[in-house]
Amino acid sequence: MKIDDIQREAADNARVIGLAGGLPAEDQFPKRAMAAAFLRALQKHHTPALQYGWVEGSAVLREVVARRLRARGARVRGADVIITSGAQQALALAFDLCCRRGDRVAVTAQTYPALLDLLRARHLVPVANSDKPLVSYSMPAIGNPIGVALTSAQRRALVAGKGMIVEDDAYADLRFSGPAMRPLLADVPERVWHAGSFSKTLSPGLRIGWLVPPRRWRRRALRLKQASDLQASSLAQAILENYLGTGDGGRPVDFDARLVRLRQLYRRRSMALLAGLREHLPEWQYKVPEGGFAIWAETPLRRARPGDEINLLRMAVAAGVVFDPGSLFRPDQGASPLALRLCFSSAPYAALHEGARRLAHAWRRFTRRRPR
Amino acid sequence: MKIDDIQREAADNARVIGLAGGLPAEDQFPKRAMAAAFLRALQKHHTPALQYGWVEGSAVLREVVARRLRARGARVRGADVIITSGAQQALALAFDLCCRRGDRVAVTAQTYPALLDLLRARHLVPVANSDKPLVSYSMPAIGNPIGVALTSAQRRALVAGKGMIVEDDAYADLRFSGPAMRPLLADVPERVWHAGSFSKTLSPGLRIGWLVPPRRWRRRALRLKQASDLQASSLAQAILENYLGTGDGGRPVDFDARLVRLRQLYRRRSMALLAGLREHLPEWQYKVPEGGFAIWAETPLRRARPGDEINLLRMAVAAGVVFDPGSLFRPDQGASPLALRLCFSSAPYAALHEGARRLAHAWRRFTRRRPR
Repeated sequence: MKIDDIQREAADNARVIGLAGGLPAEDQFPKRAMAAAFLRALQKHHTPALQYGWVEGSAVLREVVARRLRARGARVRGADVIITSGAQQALALAFDLCCRRGDRVAVTAQTYPALLDLLRARHLVPVANSDKPLVSYSMPAIGNPIGVALTSAQRRALVAGKGMIVEDDAYADLRFSGPAMRPLLADVPERVWHAGSFSKTLSPGLRIGWLVPPRRWRRRALRLKQASDLQASSLAQAILENYLGTGDGGRPVDFDARLVRLRQLYRRRSMALLAGLREHLPEWQYKVPEGGFAIWAETPLRRARPGDEINLLRMAVAAGVVFDPGSLFRPDQGASPLALRLCFSSAPYAALHEGARRLAHAWRRFTRRRPR
Repeated sequence: MKIDDIQREAADNARVIGLAGGLPAEDQFPKRAMAAAFLRALQKHHTPALQYGWVEGSAVLREVVARRLRARGARVRGADVIITSGAQQALALAFDLCCRRGDRVAVTAQTYPALLDLLRARHLVPVANSDKPLVSYSMPAIGNPIGVALTSAQRRALVAGKGMIVEDDAYADLRFSGPAMRPLLADVPERVWHAGSFSKTLSPGLRIGWLVPPRRWRRRALRLKQASDLQASSLAQAILENYLGTGDGGRPVDFDARLVRLRQLYRRRSMALLAGLREHLPEWQYKVPEGGFAIWAETPLRRARPGDEINLLRMAVAAGVVFDPGSLFRPDQGASPLALRLCFSSAPYAALHEGARRLAHAWRRFTRRRPR
């Protein structure tokens, strides 16, 4: 828990610039609209916002999700969608149903840390670059921590395979150059477990995501969802339903216009951070993101030793900036080459350049002090 | 899914009196106070209500839960508590960590249906009246569907055993005769996984519950919680924190006074339903509840045949009343003796007597038509 302890301390310190955690920009939360949505939800007869609801979730929200997926080429009805307690739960349901203890799951060389935690908690084995895998985890639209789409070749290989694919679409709507791409769900619906979320585009505090399982798995997925936590929060679903304006006649929000604004905002932030990094740390390598919340940076240190990562993290926090160490993202938890995920999503725009400067300061101190 | 289908149709029909589902009384939702709590939460710096939070949940809420448990004799600190997505998730975490595929879990002859679903989904085997079980599930304060406390002998036997105990405290605060009893957690904390919830006493729509695992299991429980859905809803936690008045200086709610009112309300409703049942169906046997939301009723039909339960349910719905069939509550899903759970918690007070009359009407029709 060492990394976690340092990051928690840093998060509590207002003087530390936060480039860790993958949080959305809090100044983009539509607070007023959500407050109005909640008040509208409370006025509804029988107050479903505060009562138990059905396991599959709000019919209105399921149709919203289905409509958005149809617009991207997938043949999905509202009845195919299950509202989940965030995309993380959708992933948990998918792997619980696809896999048995001990199974290998194909992932990319760097991937979403909470997915790795999930696989380990379920006694599944994440494997990078596996051949003909039975189950693959993929973020085809925009990856995390490397914010790029699959290449056409990678995508073709996945689609041509025979195994199950768990498609994590969390950042799909935040591709800088435009609307979300065609999901894998559109190509091989019988093999795809499609997971998505409102956490990055609206608010993670709602904990509202969705799962579209292959149709023949739907009943089992619903049973497991019910066993896991009965249902997603009625309250959060009611707020979302009313916020999106399809709930009870409130003014509809133009969610696509919101996405356009968010793409511009995050794109600008990514460019600011990248410019700062290239100025202050020109010797590092950066993957230029096509979307999402973060930049993946590799240091020139090819062979990290035990303690290197923690030391750099400590020195960074001492210099007033915090990041996510690369080992968190690797199936084998390896720290080599020494790498970092740097989030531009939540720190104020004006702090991003300064964050890069502080990181460079910590890096120089780290390299000076590191025993040869 | 037949029972479920009939119940869903009935729930959508406003003319059907709902004695199914175990829903809290919706006229007791403190809508105005919760709206105010949400608005206060939105005003907080950084809006934690809408952002990601830590896996263990709000420190304020954890301390509230710990304080309430300490007042009942348990030695619990806020740091021992994990906020979960409802008590159901607390149960799921507990059984995932206590048990391995194929394990037997001791339950009472009639027990909480979603617990049975959970055990089956996890390939665990619920067993009634097991001797020296490795893992037991118990609702010591107030049972469901039979709304009574464990006898002292049952309690002593559980405490004297050696196995793990999953203590479901969901209805503990709704004991008609007074405040919640000493939990098993107070007696054998090293063997008890204590699960509780705000669903029955405040609002199930929040999906906020808690788990107090044995201390040596805490880290593993947190890891599994994170893997399952990252965290409970920040939004629901912030509303609850602000509603309870310990959040940011709002006026504190007297939650104990609320519980006193709820106990009186549900006690009155239980008496109204019981009086109606005894008048119209004197040949049935009833367990007089000491608390909770429901009455367990056994019909004189000792040997039910396939279809009997569904037929009675169909005729009841046709007569304008819906209930929960007894097989849902039995580990072997047996329908004999033919029994029903009748909830007095959510139907309006004035409808309870009429519900009993309609049920009697359906019962007479059922017995007349049943082939000998």
